[in-house]
Amino acid sequence: MPHKLIRMQRDGHQTRPSKRPVMIAIAGDSAAGKTTLSKGLASPLGPERVSRICVDDYHKYDREERKHLPFTALHPDCNYIEIMEQHLQLLATGQPILKPVYDHDTGRLVRPELVEPREFVIVEGLLPLHSRLTRACFDITVYLDPPEEIRRAWKIQRDTQRRGYSVEQVLAELERREPESAAFIRPQRSFADLVVRFAPVEGRDDPPGTPLSAEVTLRPTIRHPDLRRILSENGQRAIHLRLARDEDGLPVDVLHVHGYVPPEESRVVQKKLWSRLGLNGGADPVKSLGDMGNGERSEALAITQLILLHHMVTALD
Amino acid sequence: MPHKLIRMQRDGHQTRPSKRPVMIAIAGDSAAGKTTLSKGLASPLGPERVSRICVDDYHKYDREERKHLPFTALHPDCNYIEIMEQHLQLLATGQPILKPVYDHDTGRLVRPELVEPREFVIVEGLLPLHSRLTRACFDITVYLDPPEEIRRAWKIQRDTQRRGYSVEQVLAELERREPESAAFIRPQRSFADLVVRFAPVEGRDDPPGTPLSAEVTLRPTIRHPDLRRILSENGQRAIHLRLARDEDGLPVDVLHVHGYVPPEESRVVQKKLWSRLGLNGGADPVKSLGDMGNGERSEALAITQLILLHHMVTALD
Repeated sequence: MPHKLIRMQRDGHQTRPSKRPVMIAIAGDSAAGKTTLSKGLASPLGPERVSRICVDDYHKYDREERKHLPFTALHPDCNYIEIMEQHLQLLATGQPILKPVYDHDTGRLVRPELVEPREFVIVEGLLPLHSRLTRACFDITVYLDPPEEIRRAWKIQRDTQRRGYSVEQVLAELERREPESAAFIRPQRSFADLVVRFAPVEGRDDPPGTPLSAEVTLRPTIRHPDLRRILSENGQRAIHLRLARDEDGLPVDVLHVHGYVPPEESRVVQKKLWSRLGLNGGADPVKSLGDMGNGERSEALAITQLILLHHMVTALD
Repeated sequence: MPHKLIRMQRDGHQTRPSKRPVMIAIAGDSAAGKTTLSKGLASPLGPERVSRICVDDYHKYDREERKHLPFTALHPDCNYIEIMEQHLQLLATGQPILKPVYDHDTGRLVRPELVEPREFVIVEGLLPLHSRLTRACFDITVYLDPPEEIRRAWKIQRDTQRRGYSVEQVLAELERREPESAAFIRPQRSFADLVVRFAPVEGRDDPPGTPLSAEVTLRPTIRHPDLRRILSENGQRAIHLRLARDEDGLPVDVLHVHGYVPPEESRVVQKKLWSRLGLNGGADPVKSLGDMGNGERSEALAITQLILLHHMVTALD
């Protein structure tokens, strides 16, 4: 390598003064709710402060080529993992990337696009926590872990309504992907600072149509917001914190966000969480949260987003 | 930025053990002969040891979009210069890139491709020496500087025969590009270690059809091969070295490679230059050099390529 370059790199010569963004990963299997969760984070922060990328764009092969390959898009060998690592490092150090683009509608790889990291970079996808180097790029890591039957229902709904597949095709694809989900997607759960599970509360006999609750596992790998004052409020039923052991036996806090309580009660908690963020907001700042993308609103989603927003804003300091 | 990443980057954690390649830039205006020159370098080194890229792939806009823009593809604003700088740094430090691809036939930006740097990386294009940071990435820098009337003839020939333009279209395009050639392309000449000019020898009255000579300006910015023994051979007429002042008044050596001498005489010099390279080669190792791309062979081109090969092989040590 030429000495001039060594010298320029050593002296931290960048192409521009690089401000280092807050990086958050939202990992999870197909249709686990990654986009729904992350969209609601950009809006309250101000979209002009947020860059959002999807690392599924790092597919090596297009849909046609994959037909002749012995693995699915979930397999690391089907993705430019090394380039994903490189690009995440560049973004984490405040530098722009020319990101590949996979067109989900046509299944083709198309013209890449420039991404310049803003104050916050939200990275969602199937494999953002796959390697040691990608994980090191994030300030906050999240894994979405809905029960399989709920994820399947979501995937069928989305892929039949928006991607033109039949139910049978989606089910066959889920079957085909299962071994790779088990091998490469689900292991990422153990590297997440927060594991989010939207599901009905086990053991309760809620009527059909009751909104989903959320169970947010808070690993002590980062400092979580202190919820004690909110939790101890008289009559507060929207959230509950429980000390537990995670699957791996390690101690965690589990925040239960109850979907079955009246929305007004949840809103009280949301406003308290919001007021801590130091963000500007209109008359009802939390109304942009909890958007399920289908016109419905989930209070459990809104509270989960507020916990993540707390982390993002805190990491900025 | 997360502490884990700072630590991993400080410890030189790369995604793979990176071997740093020899980087050579071949800059010059459209149809100056960049591809012809660089093709002949890859073949004698062994194509499996060489990566070749063209930095014109970093166009921001496709041909259609450029129609509505007040500048041509030569303008830095028409190119992702910052990403080009980033990618050249990555290659120079032995790391792969996902390079954008501009399809010259259709004028469209298409799916990017993976480039992993091999032992030698040859970078040709309009603007590889545009910025301080790009220049720092190269071990050897070359600028192709044919007389304008020769370059125009080459461009008309290529663009009418291979890109489907009419002569009038090519002439109009040359006109349109001239201010940007002057502002952005030609200034790169002053940053090149070697300036190569294929032209008839001034002052000689050679018959039409006499092969072009080459004038290779050797700036003392890198150590050039010691040609004294070859130059002093009895009866040697193929090359001649002259001390001169360059356009900027600084001292340079100018190697004159005479196209008008019989090819056999030139071949003697070529074999001597070849024998110094320590490369393997068949019965006539220099026969892969000097290929003009149109079925013709230029001895002046062959000698120029041997000088460049000398630099590349030496930089490897």
